[in-house]
Amino acid sequence: MRFVRFDTDWGTCWGRLEGSQIHVLSQGPYLGGVETGEVLSASGIRLLAPCEPSKVLGVGLNYADHRGDRRGSDSLVAGIVDRALGHDRESHREPILFLKAPSAVVGPGAAIVLPSNAQRVDYEAELAVVIGHRLHRPTRQQVLEGIFGYTCANDVSARDLQERDGQWMRAKSFDTFCPVGPWVETELDPSDLALDGLLNGEVRQHARTSHMLVGTLELVRFAAQVMTLLPGDILLTGTPTGVGVLRPGDHFTVRIEGIGELQNAVEADSHSGAV
Amino acid sequence: MRFVRFDTDWGTCWGRLEGSQIHVLSQGPYLGGVETGEVLSASGIRLLAPCEPSKVLGVGLNYADHRGDRRGSDSLVAGIVDRALGHDRESHREPILFLKAPSAVVGPGAAIVLPSNAQRVDYEAELAVVIGHRLHRPTRQQVLEGIFGYTCANDVSARDLQERDGQWMRAKSFDTFCPVGPWVETELDPSDLALDGLLNGEVRQHARTSHMLVGTLELVRFAAQVMTLLPGDILLTGTPTGVGVLRPGDHFTVRIEGIGELQNAVEADSHSGAV
Repeated sequence: MRFVRFDTDWGTCWGRLEGSQIHVLSQGPYLGGVETGEVLSASGIRLLAPCEPSKVLGVGLNYADHRGDRRGSDSLVAGIVDRALGHDRESHREPILFLKAPSAVVGPGAAIVLPSNAQRVDYEAELAVVIGHRLHRPTRQQVLEGIFGYTCANDVSARDLQERDGQWMRAKSFDTFCPVGPWVETELDPSDLALDGLLNGEVRQHARTSHMLVGTLELVRFAAQVMTLLPGDILLTGTPTGVGVLRPGDHFTVRIEGIGELQNAVEADSHSGAV
Repeated sequence: MRFVRFDTDWGTCWGRLEGSQIHVLSQGPYLGGVETGEVLSASGIRLLAPCEPSKVLGVGLNYADHRGDRRGSDSLVAGIVDRALGHDRESHREPILFLKAPSAVVGPGAAIVLPSNAQRVDYEAELAVVIGHRLHRPTRQQVLEGIFGYTCANDVSARDLQERDGQWMRAKSFDTFCPVGPWVETELDPSDLALDGLLNGEVRQHARTSHMLVGTLELVRFAAQVMTLLPGDILLTGTPTGVGVLRPGDHFTVRIEGIGELQNAVEADSHSGAV
């Protein structure tokens, strides 16, 4: 099933999308929402990010081909990958987790705004897991039952600040730097899906989720060994090679087999920056 | 004024603490809560963390003496500080921000649980700022008006994982790794307060907040240039030298002039770890 979150005149709603119709829910589906009987036409409805996360988790360098970017011609990306892998070698290939600020989350169609204090902002197409139940040190079975579904995400990153800070958080947490959507697909096997990132309609990233070094379920389990995951939390599962620069006027699409397409336009910052 | 959050038989409440009495509020004070007229005795009341943050921000190496630990005898801390300063030198001393998971927040008196998958867990006494109003690229005046108040915090960190991951988030985000409290003090000038960290009653960290490299207001302003800060968000302003190890049976106290004391006991993890 596909679940959408959307704006209406009377507030924010959840619904189940079926064809061109939205069956309105009493509240978030992972919070026990049930269908109210009201049905809306999906046309003209503005979709929002299909989650309200207390935590937006990301994982670094989870595709082998992206790790190969340490030897690539893009020196900024190569430096960041190389430094992270230096750590990872010592750490026996444990996933490198990070957090993005929840205030960075936007929905499909929303603009990615390039901040004036970043020199270079990159796209990163990713599969995102949406958590449905509280998970605290779960068994594998509890992880399976605790995942609500899957959606597309773009782990937008200010590459110059990522390099400069060493810590990745600031570079990945500007407002609008986490497009998510267009909906949560709840009936999906995430283990071998085609994942594409398209810049202005041209494929720049292409991989299958089977190329992940640490699979989706194991990532959720690893994170939940550290911190309690809550309903609505999301985990972005990493990006393959092909990351690159976003410029004003661009549009970027994350396309995942069995889910759909998340598309966002890119805008320059209209704010002067200096206060 | 001092604001407390606490557990009652009928749910979680906020109140204004005056002497030994709590004046109950209709909701969180930074959400427009007003006094209901009900007054409780504070004795026997279990205080909770006095905030419900969507973001827990931290800042690395914001005291000069802690930066000096790069040449200290503690090789693990020296390595982490040295690597971070390598970055910071390039970045013209901009603050190094990171996020802790909100699920790590606990209140005064709650146990800090040492996870079985961390070898070494350290305390870090810090002054925390509690945000009262939405802040998005604020002016200095808006920052002043947008801060709700101040409290004590302990930025508990699994030092071995901090080193191994390179990214600090996991090491700082285990459940119980962010004690906050005991209350929010709203009438306080944060610019020159005595800050102490006491291990089993013995002073291990001592500084004045005037020794911060980037002051409290500027830190809030810097963070809010990147991400929109929301009511209840907290920002931990960094720790001075003297960080050290927590062991089961220890108790650690963060004491800040004009606020009070945040005390937490330390417990071993009762969970086997393996699943």
